[in-house]
Amino acid sequence: MHNSPFAVVAKPGDKVADLSTPRPVIDEDRMAANIARTQAYMDAHGIDFRPHIKTHKIPALAAQQVAAGAKGINCQKVTEAEVFAEAGFEDILVTFNIIGAEKLERLAALNERISGLKVVADSAYTVDGLSAYFAARKPLVVLVECDTGAGRCGVQEPAQAAALAKRIDAAAGLAFGGLLNYPKPGAAAEVQAFLSQALALIEAEGVTCPIVSNGGSPSLFDAHLVPAATEHRAGTYIYNDRSMVRAGHCTVDDCAMHILATVVSRPTGDRAVIDAGSKALTSDLLGFTDYGQVVGYPQASITGLSEEHGVIDLSKCEGARPQIGDKILIIPNHTCVVSNLFDTMVFHRDGVVTRVEDVAARGLVW
Amino acid sequence: MHNSPFAVVAKPGDKVADLSTPRPVIDEDRMAANIARTQAYMDAHGIDFRPHIKTHKIPALAAQQVAAGAKGINCQKVTEAEVFAEAGFEDILVTFNIIGAEKLERLAALNERISGLKVVADSAYTVDGLSAYFAARKPLVVLVECDTGAGRCGVQEPAQAAALAKRIDAAAGLAFGGLLNYPKPGAAAEVQAFLSQALALIEAEGVTCPIVSNGGSPSLFDAHLVPAATEHRAGTYIYNDRSMVRAGHCTVDDCAMHILATVVSRPTGDRAVIDAGSKALTSDLLGFTDYGQVVGYPQASITGLSEEHGVIDLSKCEGARPQIGDKILIIPNHTCVVSNLFDTMVFHRDGVVTRVEDVAARGLVW
Repeated sequence: MHNSPFAVVAKPGDKVADLSTPRPVIDEDRMAANIARTQAYMDAHGIDFRPHIKTHKIPALAAQQVAAGAKGINCQKVTEAEVFAEAGFEDILVTFNIIGAEKLERLAALNERISGLKVVADSAYTVDGLSAYFAARKPLVVLVECDTGAGRCGVQEPAQAAALAKRIDAAAGLAFGGLLNYPKPGAAAEVQAFLSQALALIEAEGVTCPIVSNGGSPSLFDAHLVPAATEHRAGTYIYNDRSMVRAGHCTVDDCAMHILATVVSRPTGDRAVIDAGSKALTSDLLGFTDYGQVVGYPQASITGLSEEHGVIDLSKCEGARPQIGDKILIIPNHTCVVSNLFDTMVFHRDGVVTRVEDVAARGLVW
Repeated sequence: MHNSPFAVVAKPGDKVADLSTPRPVIDEDRMAANIARTQAYMDAHGIDFRPHIKTHKIPALAAQQVAAGAKGINCQKVTEAEVFAEAGFEDILVTFNIIGAEKLERLAALNERISGLKVVADSAYTVDGLSAYFAARKPLVVLVECDTGAGRCGVQEPAQAAALAKRIDAAAGLAFGGLLNYPKPGAAAEVQAFLSQALALIEAEGVTCPIVSNGGSPSLFDAHLVPAATEHRAGTYIYNDRSMVRAGHCTVDDCAMHILATVVSRPTGDRAVIDAGSKALTSDLLGFTDYGQVVGYPQASITGLSEEHGVIDLSKCEGARPQIGDKILIIPNHTCVVSNLFDTMVFHRDGVVTRVEDVAARGLVW
């Protein structure tokens, strides 16, 4: 897929410590454990699980998630869904209002190709646009997106959800697929209240609601607190990151993704500079005040990023300090945006490369 | 280079307004004017100009910069330099401490291939590593990187610069190329003082200093305030962005890059949601409190980004508000990181696509 003649290649058997930097690397065993643990939680509570592939954008990893028991997958773009359909996935939920002829055309082709395509809508505009396009085609399944407090997309009230469900149910070319929300963290009670009220209103209209899809990594292990939901969606858990440690969903030892970087300068006693900047770690703070956690140097703080430099403040380090030439590992604040920067992802077991996967759905416009 | 079968293709003659979103688009005429204006300033002051290709990563654009009068180009990674060497560029300065066998090997091959490769070093460690590798090869030109106040890489004092220059001059396989700094903005006097003192010390040792390379987009039009410098490096000026408007280097009408996005939801009267999130705009704030400027809606504020959603606060808008389905243009905070997200870049004149270029040096590890 990404075959630049200038790509720096890693291959099975290489030692991670010998790889050129900066480069994200994934611990196979930690990743497998993350998949198993989260699926076991969902299974224990009878919740269907739909992993969000935005975190990795790699079909082979989605296959591992489905093999572990996931019901289907979640994509955020039509082009992502195309990559995963090509890889054989049939149950794909695209959690986005699809608007505009150029996207609808691809969506329609995809709907002809796989059996389980679903999208969301939160307005009459989106529903009517979908209906106009799909009226003469294979019907498209559409869920109503609800804003239960996160302040992004979604209808604002259960009554609006019911009205939109009815509109979908009555629309040519569309089939009502259920309800969906992306909650704010720690608000399971509000989510349950909104969804159960909307469900009651929809059922009172005689409309069946096949799926109630709750989601979000921040509320991953609160999924069982929303009994109205039939399924949960989450992505980050497969790799885990600093935000997931902070949320209490894992420990640093469950973080499967590290950014391998080299210390290239020690201009002062208190400053180290690494070759990982905003084009490797991204500027996502997610509420943190620095740009990642340096493994083995708990008091080191990545205080600033240029595009290809990271500046580390060592002034609070009590023990050893990294020296020029040292390779270090960084747990990123947010794995999903790191994945999106690299054309290939390197996997390893105990520091030996096991495989290199194309980040097949990276960089696609829509 | 990037030939995913799932790429959404744009082609010359397409209307920008019809393109799938989100997608950055570049105004050809604004870009050409930005190249001409900056080169004219450098020419007027007798300063060699070395554009930094990190902003666009596209050889055809570097060719336009060189055709306008640029002396050579600036890369930040060996792999970037490889892409530009392949495209025919000979005078390439890689402004990084190159450390580690895997990078040195590629650097040595590149040095055999082109006539004007140069790198920097700010420590004896880096110099000795380069010397050990290049001793039996074609000599490599090395500049001393100086920290004149920006707090990133670089020797801290002019005397250290002189000592390192002498070490390079005496090292097997290396040739001393001069001095380099990346300044903090608005500190031309400190830069001039540091560089002129270092120059005097180096010349007192009988060592010739061919290049004194000052840099940075924030200090672009302060270049003439550092007479010790023989050249200036900058990247962002070719596209310009919100940070360059704030710095007083251009107006919004000089911003050649826009992110084309679609309004996909209007959940409330005061909220719009677009299909451009942190995977299109990036989370780079660069000191701003929101994530870009919406053209035509000066009071709209992009207050939050998810990966594929941008939330716009419309509460302060006095006139019209964007509606669902509208396509809007956003001036990003920082162009360089946006370029790094997309495999292709679309150029247009008056809203009609003129060409589509591969972002050839994107996503290369090193």
